[in-house]
Parts: sequence; structure tokens; C-alpha cells
Amino acid sequence: MTSVHDVVAEYWAAAAARDWERFGTLLADDVLYRGPQARELVRGKQAYLRFNAEGFAYEWQLAVKRIVGEGRHAASWIEMTYADDTQAGLCFFDLTEDGKIAEITDFWPAPSELPDSRAHLVERY
Amino acid sequence: MTSVHDVVAEYWAAAAARDWERFGTLLADDVLYRGPQARELVRGKQAYLRFNAEGFAYEWQLAVKRIVGEGRHAASWIEMTYADDTQAGLCFFDLTEDGKIAEITDFWPAPSELPDSRAHLVERY
Repeated sequence: MTSVHDVVAEYWAAAAARDWERFGTLLADDVLYRGPQARELVRGKQAYLRFNAEGFAYEWQLAVKRIVGEGRHAASWIEMTYADDTQAGLCFFDLTEDGKIAEITDFWPAPSELPDSRAHLVERY
Repeated sequence: MTSVHDVVAEYWAAAAARDWERFGTLLADDVLYRGPQARELVRGKQAYLRFNAEGFAYEWQLAVKRIVGEGRHAASWIEMTYADDTQAGLCFFDLTEDGKIAEITDFWPAPSELPDSRAHLVERY
């Protein structure tokens, strides 16, 4: 019995290795991917494999910062580096009863300005 | 023994109720809050209570979409509504051995454009 934490660790290891065959074994056939920021959606394993293999065809590297798994749910926080830029990537996963990834919701928060309204309440780093 | 999932559920229930006394009971004295997007940092329970009570003094409402807890780590996905705008908020939590919140890393991904490079690989919603 593989834990949801291990499934997500394997998902990122396979992605980092561009091993899309191994990556595909973790996905439900009708996996659903959502990127809420651009309101983008990918339906099904074949389309999602193509999205990953062809949608990001540049020399990115990823590092896992945190994986948290509970029951059939998980979240991950990764850092993706491309050229000199590093960005945080945050995913929430829902798994099927038999441990396949059924839904992925993916967020990429960008740098932002500090609002004046709380500038006196924080330090900067 | 309260689970990390329950601690985070209580954190958001207390925040939603603006019950900062109850909220404070969940925090380690030296709690550390980080907002990586604006590189903002708040150190310690009293400063973090003030940050929450005074930094967002408008009529927001929150709804919890997902909490995932494992060991001393957790993640949450909430939706924050203010006026007619709803934004996703994503937090990663680390707890002390005795179940107090020691670190919070907080992300607020904003809407973004879909890159042309993957427009042919997705649907929009």
C-alpha cells in the first residue's frame, strides 16, 4: 500500500526526470488538471502527458520543498528554476480509491508589492 | 491529542470569527510568518496577532476549500472574498512537538495570462 505522500513524491521525481511513462502510471485515465490563475483545464491522461512533455519545453529544474498527504488528499510546494528565475509551485491533489491521481489543482504565485496598509506590521526579507 | 488537520481547521475558524484570542492559543510564542511574494515576515505571537487584526481591516470572508495534515506539517487552500472579488489563499504550516503553529508560509496567487506556448494543449474554463 503506497501512501498518498509517496505517490506525490514519485510524481515529482518522474517529472524531474522527464520520465513521462513512469509519470503516466501515477495518473487516473480521466485525470483532471486545473490551473485556476489562467483558468486552464486539461482532461485525461494522454492530454495531460502531452501538456507536460510539450508545454514546458525549456531547461527547467525542480526541487521539492514540502509534500503533505492525508487520506486521499495531498499538497506539494516545489521550487521551479528556469535560467536564473526560481518560482514557487503549489499543487493540491485528489486521488482515486486505488491510489491514482484524479485531480490536480496547480498554482504559481508571482512576486507582488507589499500593500501600504500593512507595511508597518511586517519586516522585509 | 489534536491532529494537525484539526489545528489548521481551528486556525481558520478562529480567523473567520475574528476571534484573535482563540486564534492566539494555536500559535507558538515565536511563530514565524512569511509571505514570499512580497518577501514579508512577521516574528512572534503578539506581532502576528496584530498583523491579522490590523493588516486586513475590511469586510473579508473566508471559505476553506481543503486542509491536508501529516505529522507536524499541513497545507490549506482557502478562498477569500472581499467585495465581489474572490482569491485563493494557500498556506503551509509547520507545528512544534506540542502542536502549536511554529511557521506559516502564505501564498496568494493572482490571475494570470495563459502563455501562447501551451494554449493548444489546454481548454479554458
